[in-house]
Amino acid sequence: MSEPASGRGLRVAEIAQLLEVDFRGDGDCLIESLASLSGAGPRSICFVSDAKYLVDLPACRAGAVLMRAADAVDCERTVILVDNPYLAYAKVSQWLHGAAPSQAGIHPTAVVMDGAEVCATAEIGPHVVIEAGASIGAEAVIGAGCYIGAGAKIGAGTRLAPRVTVLHGCEIGQHCRVLSASVIGADGFGFAPERGKGWQRIEQVGAVRIGDRVEIGACTTVDRGALDDTVIEDGVIIDNHVQIAHNVHIGKYTAIAGCVGIAGSTRIGQNCQLGGGSSVVGHLQLDDGVVVFANTFVTSSLKAGVYASATAAQPVADWRRNQPNLRQFHQLAKRMRQVFVKVCSDQNTTANSSE
Amino acid sequence: MSEPASGRGLRVAEIAQLLEVDFRGDGDCLIESLASLSGAGPRSICFVSDAKYLVDLPACRAGAVLMRAADAVDCERTVILVDNPYLAYAKVSQWLHGAAPSQAGIHPTAVVMDGAEVCATAEIGPHVVIEAGASIGAEAVIGAGCYIGAGAKIGAGTRLAPRVTVLHGCEIGQHCRVLSASVIGADGFGFAPERGKGWQRIEQVGAVRIGDRVEIGACTTVDRGALDDTVIEDGVIIDNHVQIAHNVHIGKYTAIAGCVGIAGSTRIGQNCQLGGGSSVVGHLQLDDGVVVFANTFVTSSLKAGVYASATAAQPVADWRRNQPNLRQFHQLAKRMRQVFVKVCSDQNTTANSSE
Amino acid sequence: MSEPASGRGLRVAEIAQLLEVDFRGDGDCLIESLASLSGAGPRSICFVSDAKYLVDLPACRAGAVLMRAADAVDCERTVILVDNPYLAYAKVSQWLHGAAPSQAGIHPTAVVMDGAEVCATAEIGPHVVIEAGASIGAEAVIGAGCYIGAGAKIGAGTRLAPRVTVLHGCEIGQHCRVLSASVIGADGFGFAPERGKGWQRIEQVGAVRIGDRVEIGACTTVDRGALDDTVIEDGVIIDNHVQIAHNVHIGKYTAIAGCVGIAGSTRIGQNCQLGGGSSVVGHLQLDDGVVVFANTFVTSSLKAGVYASATAAQPVADWRRNQPNLRQFHQLAKRMRQVFVKVCSDQNTTANSSE
Repeated sequence: MSEPASGRGLRVAEIAQLLEVDFRGDGDCLIESLASLSGAGPRSICFVSDAKYLVDLPACRAGAVLMRAADAVDCERTVILVDNPYLAYAKVSQWLHGAAPSQAGIHPTAVVMDGAEVCATAEIGPHVVIEAGASIGAEAVIGAGCYIGAGAKIGAGTRLAPRVTVLHGCEIGQHCRVLSASVIGADGFGFAPERGKGWQRIEQVGAVRIGDRVEIGACTTVDRGALDDTVIEDGVIIDNHVQIAHNVHIGKYTAIAGCVGIAGSTRIGQNCQLGGGSSVVGHLQLDDGVVVFANTFVTSSLKAGVYASATAAQPVADWRRNQPNLRQFHQLAKRMRQVFVKVCSDQNTTANSSE
Repeated sequence: MSEPASGRGLRVAEIAQLLEVDFRGDGDCLIESLASLSGAGPRSICFVSDAKYLVDLPACRAGAVLMRAADAVDCERTVILVDNPYLAYAKVSQWLHGAAPSQAGIHPTAVVMDGAEVCATAEIGPHVVIEAGASIGAEAVIGAGCYIGAGAKIGAGTRLAPRVTVLHGCEIGQHCRVLSASVIGADGFGFAPERGKGWQRIEQVGAVRIGDRVEIGACTTVDRGALDDTVIEDGVIIDNHVQIAHNVHIGKYTAIAGCVGIAGSTRIGQNCQLGGGSSVVGHLQLDDGVVVFANTFVTSSLKAGVYASATAAQPVADWRRNQPNLRQFHQLAKRMRQVFVKVCSDQNTTANSSE
Repeated sequence: MSEPASGRGLRVAEIAQLLEVDFRGDGDCLIESLASLSGAGPRSICFVSDAKYLVDLPACRAGAVLMRAADAVDCERTVILVDNPYLAYAKVSQWLHGAAPSQAGIHPTAVVMDGAEVCATAEIGPHVVIEAGASIGAEAVIGAGCYIGAGAKIGAGTRLAPRVTVLHGCEIGQHCRVLSASVIGADGFGFAPERGKGWQRIEQVGAVRIGDRVEIGACTTVDRGALDDTVIEDGVIIDNHVQIAHNVHIGKYTAIAGCVGIAGSTRIGQNCQLGGGSSVVGHLQLDDGVVVFANTFVTSSLKAGVYASATAAQPVADWRRNQPNLRQFHQLAKRMRQVFVKVCSDQNTTANSSE
């Protein structure tokens, strides 16, 4: 486990005050880190969001626990009483373990081309390359080895982890984070077939526009638009290995789990959730609030609702018996319908004849 | 949207001449950029490949439009008359927005090892590493932070975007493009199990050979061969997040969409198309012209034709009801067949008895 | 094909001695490289693990062949007689083609921060960044452009290919390999929803702990833990484009093929095998020895055994007919059961009435 940043502890009373809630017990207790119930020590704080973990509480050595008042009735230890322990845990994690402030300055091995604008309070790591016309906002952190293309803009307070690539003309808003090895603004996959001559490339003239407080994971790609821009609105969160093709538009607060692929020109609404491994074909519209389970294959536009398509693992012997049936399913279904009609009509005949 | 390169405009008459087609209207109209119908200005050119977009044309401010003569009959604006507007759009995009010529020279932060050959007209970006014995062809562009391994060869006019990795001994032909964060020639996944001792690595002795005019997206991997080479023929186009395992062979002009995985030693023919998210197991042969829909799982060799396998998203309530039936499908199918036989034989019996 | 390292040849008798087996024929024959049956020359060695390839042997120009005694009965060429030719091939590949020893030293373009410990025998490539508190073990090789975060530890003999990112506090054991563009220790995807305000980030306080002799492919991500660590035990092998989420635990000798995704907090046992493209949802337990076929979707904990779920490609005409039936499968299944009961009861009635 990585060490908490030294000197960033908070007392229980301070945490309760920041959360605007009550606490019971030792308000002076110094909390230096978050921990799991089993990994906690006297300067750690834990959370219990599910009552099933209450049984683990007596053995837990944490200095304090974030929990619901209803769960804490018989609890004699130091507790901070919250309505939503998971949300409180998130906030406390930021106060205790949030990234250190940017260290203003440009590392001597970084290459900043003439005509690039780097705010004096930004931190530019080793071996970064910033091309002409790019701009880096106040207190932004550009990790080691990042590439910022010509005319790209990185907003104030945004942090790029090491080895992020942002291509020319793309814009990332304020207080975003992009994790390592991700690529923002690679050319979209656009080619026109020419008979007998293969594929003619379509130059991708659009860029990528990313709003504020967007989080993008590692090894994720957001392609630049063909003509207009690919757009990701404020507060979107995106996990690792996600592919967002050219001219996709993703609405505010939508969450996209790992290994999702979204094909070109599809619009995903606000407050949607795409489960891990799901994929969405191109030129669709997913309305606000659509929820898609893991590994779902979306082939048509969807109204608000919950959707799924994947079949779960089964023992291989069953699977082998099912496979041939699945492939000739339409024949089985047809026979099934014939039989149903036959049996029903027999039944009717019988019924009639017995009248 | 990124700016078009200054000074690269073309007049309408010039575009028509390059396309070897006729135009109507103002041949002197200067066109500086491609645009969508809604985003166009007087120095933009648009295209209409589908008649359903003709209704948007009156409001479009473009200087000229690429369209079919049949669609342009009543159109009073400047039009360039083409048989295939989408293909014409691709070509015009290259003339207006194609990459600037390489800027000959090696950036002072690049590391070029003794014994590497870099053509004087090649452009080598900041923080590039070129190992001994590697060679970089004329007018090639090696983006910032690329790594070119020992003995690797990059052909004339080929462009590697920033942060591409090409490992030792791999060859990329002429006029190819590889986008950021892709890895050409990583070791194939080859291990032999040794009882009670886990896995013994099999050194991957082959390399990767890529033909001319091949396009490879971002975050894509093409593994080196175990003994012989992994091969990608001329004019193949490959999108982002694609995995091409060791000793795969991909035929000319084949197109591979995003998030596709192809397992070891499989041969994909020429002019194939693999839809996004599809996967192909190892040691198969896909004949020329095979088309595979998105998210298809290919487990056997395929003759020319169109194939699919994925099930589309449905409302989660339906999905929940279907799942248990799908898992015990073979039992259902068996009963179904019993019933069918029974009902048929009843029918026969009835038929016979009624004779 | 890449060249074998010069001067690393072995004589047939030496290879047999290293394998602790017998040979027949020319023990002095110098072997410099492994080759496929069709690509071999007189200084190559081949292997035959499947008797179906014996027909190709007469035309093969290899100096020696690794094969089973039973397959070599009538073979007059130089053979090394082994029980498991594939395993022998793996071992010989390491002796002939294993990586060259590390070249001790730190490239002048590498940035090693104060307080980092780099063993004198380690090889640190160009443009590497090693942050304060990190340590690099004996004879480790850190490829060009790698990033080693603060406090991270790289064990002795471990090799990172160019452009690997290891974030702060993560530990990689001895004799591991990580291939290009992979990211170890990116933040896990942890966010708590706050009504009307989107997502609150949960700082990821854990790290990644990787054991000895672990192999990790290219473009693969292993996320750091939320509170405790993400753990990969000794001897695990992982292919390209794999996503391992926060707090996953992977047991010894487990093999994970390309494009697999494993969601948070799932525990995979020892000696498991996950086929390419398979995915495992979070908070599950896969027991030791679970085998999952390619493209399988695992949604529940699994006992030792073999599992599958994916449906294979079919001609698109069949697929189109099957799709609507699959979506309304529960209705069909219901009717099917009604008919079955009806026909059975009819049968019973008939049977009874005929008594």
